[in-house]
Amino acid sequence: MFSFEVMTEDGKARAGNLVTSHGSIKTPSFVSVGTLASVNPLSVDELLNIGTQVIIANAFHLHLQPGEDVINRRGGLHNFMRWDRPLITDSGGFQAFSLGARKEARSGKIASMSNDKKFKGPGVHTEKEKPSISVDEDGIKFLSYIDGSERNYTPERIINIEKKLGADIIMMLDECTSPFHDYRYTKEAMARTQRWSLRALEEFKQASSDGQALFGIVQGGIFKDLRLEGARFLAEQDFSGYAIGGFLGESKKGMHDILDLVMPLLKKDKPRHLLGIGEIDDIFEIVERGIDLFDCIFPTKLAKTGTVFTKEGKRYRIHLLNSAYRYDTRPIDESCKCYTCMNYSKAYIRYLFKIKDSFAVRLASIHNLSFIESLMRQIRVAIMEKRFSELKREWLRDT
Amino acid sequence: MFSFEVMTEDGKARAGNLVTSHGSIKTPSFVSVGTLASVNPLSVDELLNIGTQVIIANAFHLHLQPGEDVINRRGGLHNFMRWDRPLITDSGGFQAFSLGARKEARSGKIASMSNDKKFKGPGVHTEKEKPSISVDEDGIKFLSYIDGSERNYTPERIINIEKKLGADIIMMLDECTSPFHDYRYTKEAMARTQRWSLRALEEFKQASSDGQALFGIVQGGIFKDLRLEGARFLAEQDFSGYAIGGFLGESKKGMHDILDLVMPLLKKDKPRHLLGIGEIDDIFEIVERGIDLFDCIFPTKLAKTGTVFTKEGKRYRIHLLNSAYRYDTRPIDESCKCYTCMNYSKAYIRYLFKIKDSFAVRLASIHNLSFIESLMRQIRVAIMEKRFSELKREWLRDT
Repeated sequence: MFSFEVMTEDGKARAGNLVTSHGSIKTPSFVSVGTLASVNPLSVDELLNIGTQVIIANAFHLHLQPGEDVINRRGGLHNFMRWDRPLITDSGGFQAFSLGARKEARSGKIASMSNDKKFKGPGVHTEKEKPSISVDEDGIKFLSYIDGSERNYTPERIINIEKKLGADIIMMLDECTSPFHDYRYTKEAMARTQRWSLRALEEFKQASSDGQALFGIVQGGIFKDLRLEGARFLAEQDFSGYAIGGFLGESKKGMHDILDLVMPLLKKDKPRHLLGIGEIDDIFEIVERGIDLFDCIFPTKLAKTGTVFTKEGKRYRIHLLNSAYRYDTRPIDESCKCYTCMNYSKAYIRYLFKIKDSFAVRLASIHNLSFIESLMRQIRVAIMEKRFSELKREWLRDT
Repeated sequence: MFSFEVMTEDGKARAGNLVTSHGSIKTPSFVSVGTLASVNPLSVDELLNIGTQVIIANAFHLHLQPGEDVINRRGGLHNFMRWDRPLITDSGGFQAFSLGARKEARSGKIASMSNDKKFKGPGVHTEKEKPSISVDEDGIKFLSYIDGSERNYTPERIINIEKKLGADIIMMLDECTSPFHDYRYTKEAMARTQRWSLRALEEFKQASSDGQALFGIVQGGIFKDLRLEGARFLAEQDFSGYAIGGFLGESKKGMHDILDLVMPLLKKDKPRHLLGIGEIDDIFEIVERGIDLFDCIFPTKLAKTGTVFTKEGKRYRIHLLNSAYRYDTRPIDESCKCYTCMNYSKAYIRYLFKIKDSFAVRLASIHNLSFIESLMRQIRVAIMEKRFSELKREWLRDT
């Protein structure tokens, strides 16, 4: 089962309802990142309390470990990780990219999401470096980071892996180019991704999809004509929804410009997922441009360092290790209704960070994810009440 | 409020009820170790679900960080860590010992509980090493491991720190000698600990104790006459209960012999806490000798390594990283009713350990602590039904 309905539009922002076999998602929605089939360090019960609607895991990593067969024997990813609400699997295109892109990446999405040391090939590796990955018409070949074995990843194969995993929404295999790829290579890669999309669709239709929905992915790097062409092409194909992936530019303005171009070309009645973006100011900008789903590692990544969200903090953050909080018996945010804020003081959580107790990260993660879910609820209500730009102004006034 | 009643005796084993201002403890009871005011990595809600009755924290560590005043401002340790059931604070005598004992410690309680590198002084440090700790009639002097500052720890001061922390049961300051101290030094230290016990009692009575109970600690190392003398002395003083601390011998037999000697001398109507002991076979031996409370870091320490308790496993353990469990869709223990076993397969938990997801340690800790609590329930019922030795035979038959 898969359906999507836009309930209200407020400018280009939309409030919708996405229905899957594992329940519905009110959009626009944050997608919690559970790359390895776990939203570390939280339990699924904690996620349910937080209000998490949907999790994105990664077929590439799960294929390498523990393997789709281990998960399939347990009845699929939902059962394996005991999450019976909506699940997405990404295909691993970005992973091919981050294994492949070069280390000069400095800014934006890449710098924040990838380990510099992993930036090698394809096409941009230095003479000395043997790339751990190669891309050709057939698909992606790479060496497993688990055991060094050679792996072959084709558009058809990833569909079959994702079918075994059984997520509600699955992504096609794409080639996610890096900011160091030039126009010519990016164009070539995008054309190849288009051919892969047709192969993925074909394979997807071969066997019963068990209610799964396949999303196509728009690539094209920072090149506007390529993004336009990619979006136009995908809109003609029979995908259930769209994802926008890859590098969108060095600046946030660059990302906004590309979204401004791409979004009008996608079919309005299909959901759009922006992959890997979602700082708090980004959320307003992307929702304003019609994004329905987005995933971002920031809330849990910041939590690991003791940085927690508050509306008043600089860039919506405060750092709990700050000595100002040593005696602070108040919660992180007095208006927050999350488990952390209802129960624990800043002083206690700060102390747990000081003694490196892992419960600290858990409490901070619960707060940060709850904060985002609460913001998304406010955004959905604002769209339904046609006052999204007012809410945006209220939040972004100081930035 | 503090009272203790022995309900049933079965040989020397006893089932009792210990009442504190924060609720009652059915004895014999395992005491969960929350040294730093947190039973890492669990939340208090998880502990309540596990059936945890009582937690022991450590006044020495909490004094150094975050400081008793931080905790007192939050309304005491119960509020600070949000545990409104019974709490014990240990005094730091063992920490003085482990900062002070030498690294040759090889076996038994010491080897399992202390970091070898910390074994220096008092009295047994080498010529070159400046001891980080010194003991005299007044108390213990040491350098803070947090900031290097010199700290003074007297029997009176620790009572005042523990009053500020506000645990239900507090331990007097003791000097916990190491296996490398000879008879003469151990005797001298024990005599000093006796004098400290009178000073602690005096200080304890000075101000309102807010329902707290003070326990005296039996020391004396492996020397039977010293243990006897220590127990006789304490039994004459006005403590609400007893703890047995320090090194009890290289072998488990040595520990049993000392308990056989000491226990009959302690007043029968007062609770007895064995500090820092509690492997599964130990539990039967110490309960059989009349121990009512014991704390042990093993269940959570083993959980961190992926080792979990089962009745059938060798030494009651299995190691989840074993490749035999890769496809094992069954819970750790099919008869176990804990959150982990009711929800997750061995294959999933094993996988979480493989990817170093901290949720793995949480699930294993929940299981291990639940396993111990379940065992203690069985033991309490067996004592009440006068069939403790039958239960012991059933469990220890293969060891």
